[in-house]
Amino acid sequence: MVGLLSKCRTLLPGLSASASRWQRHRSRLYHRAPGRLKPLMLSQLFHPLNFQEDAVAGLESKPGELTCRSQRLMLQAGLIYPASPGCYYYMPWALRAMEKLVRVIDHEMQAIGGQKLSMPALSSADLWRASGRWDVMGQELFRLADRHGQKYCLGPTHEELVTNLIASQGVLSYRQLPLLLYQISRKFRDEPKPRFGLLRSREFYMKDMYTFDSSEEAARRTYNLVCDAYCSILNRLELRFVKVQAAMGNIGGTMSHEFQLPADTGEDRLVACSSCDFSANTETMNPDQRDCPVCKGKLSEMKGIEVGHTFYLGTKYSSVFNASFLTAQNQPTLAEMGCYGLGVTRILAASVEVLSKADAIRWPRLIAPYLVCLIPPKKGSREEMAGALLERLYDSIIESIPLLQGDAVLDDRTHLTIGKRLKDANILGYPYIVVAGKKTLGDPSEFEVWSQNTGEVLFLTKEGVIDLLSKVQVP
Amino acid sequence: MVGLLSKCRTLLPGLSASASRWQRHRSRLYHRAPGRLKPLMLSQLFHPLNFQEDAVAGLESKPGELTCRSQRLMLQAGLIYPASPGCYYYMPWALRAMEKLVRVIDHEMQAIGGQKLSMPALSSADLWRASGRWDVMGQELFRLADRHGQKYCLGPTHEELVTNLIASQGVLSYRQLPLLLYQISRKFRDEPKPRFGLLRSREFYMKDMYTFDSSEEAARRTYNLVCDAYCSILNRLELRFVKVQAAMGNIGGTMSHEFQLPADTGEDRLVACSSCDFSANTETMNPDQRDCPVCKGKLSEMKGIEVGHTFYLGTKYSSVFNASFLTAQNQPTLAEMGCYGLGVTRILAASVEVLSKADAIRWPRLIAPYLVCLIPPKKGSREEMAGALLERLYDSIIESIPLLQGDAVLDDRTHLTIGKRLKDANILGYPYIVVAGKKTLGDPSEFEVWSQNTGEVLFLTKEGVIDLLSKVQVP
Ligand SMILES: [Zn+2]
Ligand SMILES: [Zn+2]
Repeated sequence: MVGLLSKCRTLLPGLSASASRWQRHRSRLYHRAPGRLKPLMLSQLFHPLNFQEDAVAGLESKPGELTCRSQRLMLQAGLIYPASPGCYYYMPWALRAMEKLVRVIDHEMQAIGGQKLSMPALSSADLWRASGRWDVMGQELFRLADRHGQKYCLGPTHEELVTNLIASQGVLSYRQLPLLLYQISRKFRDEPKPRFGLLRSREFYMKDMYTFDSSEEAARRTYNLVCDAYCSILNRLELRFVKVQAAMGNIGGTMSHEFQLPADTGEDRLVACSSCDFSANTETMNPDQRDCPVCKGKLSEMKGIEVGHTFYLGTKYSSVFNASFLTAQNQPTLAEMGCYGLGVTRILAASVEVLSKADAIRWPRLIAPYLVCLIPPKKGSREEMAGALLERLYDSIIESIPLLQGDAVLDDRTHLTIGKRLKDANILGYPYIVVAGKKTLGDPSEFEVWSQNTGEVLFLTKEGVIDLLSKVQVP
Repeated sequence: MVGLLSKCRTLLPGLSASASRWQRHRSRLYHRAPGRLKPLMLSQLFHPLNFQEDAVAGLESKPGELTCRSQRLMLQAGLIYPASPGCYYYMPWALRAMEKLVRVIDHEMQAIGGQKLSMPALSSADLWRASGRWDVMGQELFRLADRHGQKYCLGPTHEELVTNLIASQGVLSYRQLPLLLYQISRKFRDEPKPRFGLLRSREFYMKDMYTFDSSEEAARRTYNLVCDAYCSILNRLELRFVKVQAAMGNIGGTMSHEFQLPADTGEDRLVACSSCDFSANTETMNPDQRDCPVCKGKLSEMKGIEVGHTFYLGTKYSSVFNASFLTAQNQPTLAEMGCYGLGVTRILAASVEVLSKADAIRWPRLIAPYLVCLIPPKKGSREEMAGALLERLYDSIIESIPLLQGDAVLDDRTHLTIGKRLKDANILGYPYIVVAGKKTLGDPSEFEVWSQNTGEVLFLTKEGVIDLLSKVQVP
């Protein structure tokens, strides 16, 4: 601190007066007592609820198209708001969930050696012409020209840019491989029919990873490593999923898998064998096939929401841009590539879609916008005194589990009944709700704890609540 | 964990086989011993150095335009790579610095009640026509049409979108104000002459905050609060800065300030009074003015790099979109607005510009890509044995200061001399460099510690190094 102060006093001569003015301001901001922060009050969080269903129906331009649960619930709970077709405002609560999800993804990508970078959204037409995709992509690309008439698209995916980057860095050594580069960024796709809210939008967040290997064998090892990391992510989110063989689409390559969340509202049709490991998107199957192509076992059908897609690309792109490396024998050789997409906003919406009840959101516990909501008694009620005990519980939670600072909300709307606030909390889908009531004033003093993801209701002492919450992960 | 496993075993019937396959993979990833992680090895970090100056000069399309230190150093150190004019790849090291800076900004914005959201990049032409800026902005806007012919621009700033959002949420209550909403996102501006690397690029990251207040007086309080938070951010970065009165430009409003880093390469001309608080961008001054308009004191001149810009907007936008609130007397009233920009990539480049030496990067300690580099002796040298002691130091640092995990790099290129690696480390600008040499094998065992931001070199025992580093902040 002293370092900062003296730094500031040594501003250019003419600035010393205004510098010390800043010091005064800074002190005010910095000298708040650490640790003992004001509780997060629900009434102060910007969170426009639209609990009227008909109000929600009017939000999207074609009300008849509110066709899935996550779209309806996310609009209703004020998590998203439509700006133009397929383009949404991510409101503060949704953004909190997204930032948690991004931390989970970063952690798992970096655990397998992934290195994060960020590529431009404006993607030069020349690169897309080189790969042949400027024409192939047709109307799905948003295209524009700059003030000098140079043409660009807004990148829906970045194979061209990343391969060109690697090619331009000079020849790599085999010792630098495998190289796993990824980014988490906003992507653009001019969907013919944007719908289902964040499930099929025109602006969306995607994690895209690109890998470079020295041989097909090494590339397949890397491919499996990334697929395993995808499994880790979905397991940590406690989501049921299936990995199926998939079609290559316009990305190309020789092997591809999708990660699908089984859901009746899913747009993909899948089959899985009951006797062996085989599972596939029906796109990849002969429509007449009735039994498993591996073991002739029985195939069961289901629908799924795609949340991840992996491709083994071989040298499809490295040959176009000449992305090569030197072998141990000093031979320049094309890198074997893979690419791996994971829908970030898609996972948010798909989680809400598969976990929620008809009229109440459920989040994966790991990424819920706020982990716990504490509800004090109504003002003027007979239990009002229990409010002070709840506030003390709030402080103890933050003190014992500092990670939860910022993740625990106090529903201070004490002019409303507990029942009304419990109903709101249920709709919003906090994984844990803690209510102070009659038993809180009893001996022992107990709180009513709703564990929303399991459906349990428990009565726990202060120590019991802290013990329960200390086992919860926050990314 | 048990919860996850059982969750996974209860996949749809046909999926149990592949589910248990995933379990095996997961175990491999999850059962690595916690805590005792492999050191971060420099040789494994993707980091294309271009130490040849002429190689750097060829990177940009017009080599003659490498006109400032930060552009040259950032290209040379492989922090950025040009994709097209004014559009850069942010390479892994630069992205690490940016993510740290984002955490600092988030912290300070949330400390004053800021709530983070994310708005679309595609901004409907209708909204910009309503404010009159569709025409005013001219060629600075990137414009495009979707497949249905609807027109959009890529948002360089979001006054229209945020005001339209607030207006569409139904009437606010005065109790909900002040409302401080912000985002940190990629912005687009079709600069006529992109140059100076990240200082004037066409794609850039900006933090933009928008505030809504119930009266002019309240709005001015909020305005000062945000300005104070900007001071906190720049102080935490240990950057010298000056806040000057500024012109309104095409944003509009009635009061505006810029936050400038004094620098000879700056594009803005500033004056500051030596006797009072007055300071200004010369754009706002009568060119004949020679003395301070407040106290008639002497004005000194300097140049600056703008990193932040604040505007008190009044009702300029709220009146266009009818963003209003209900007063305590139930009167619908237009909200008083402010908007506040902080250049995120601009701060990265400007920091490098003002802190670096001619041939060596210096970062604000708080946001350097990696905080510390440890250099073991050359293989085969007489001090080689000191390498094991340095690795033990590395482990102790991570164990005592878990925050530094991921921030300490071991330069494992032991085929190179210490001198050569020290030179590289100096160019890259780690705030701390720890070298193991002859004294490390002595009694007491001491390491050579270079504190790059202060220029000090110290000899410290293991405990001394840990003590020094434990005082350092990591956001
Ligand atoms: Zn089978
Ligand atoms: Zn003066």
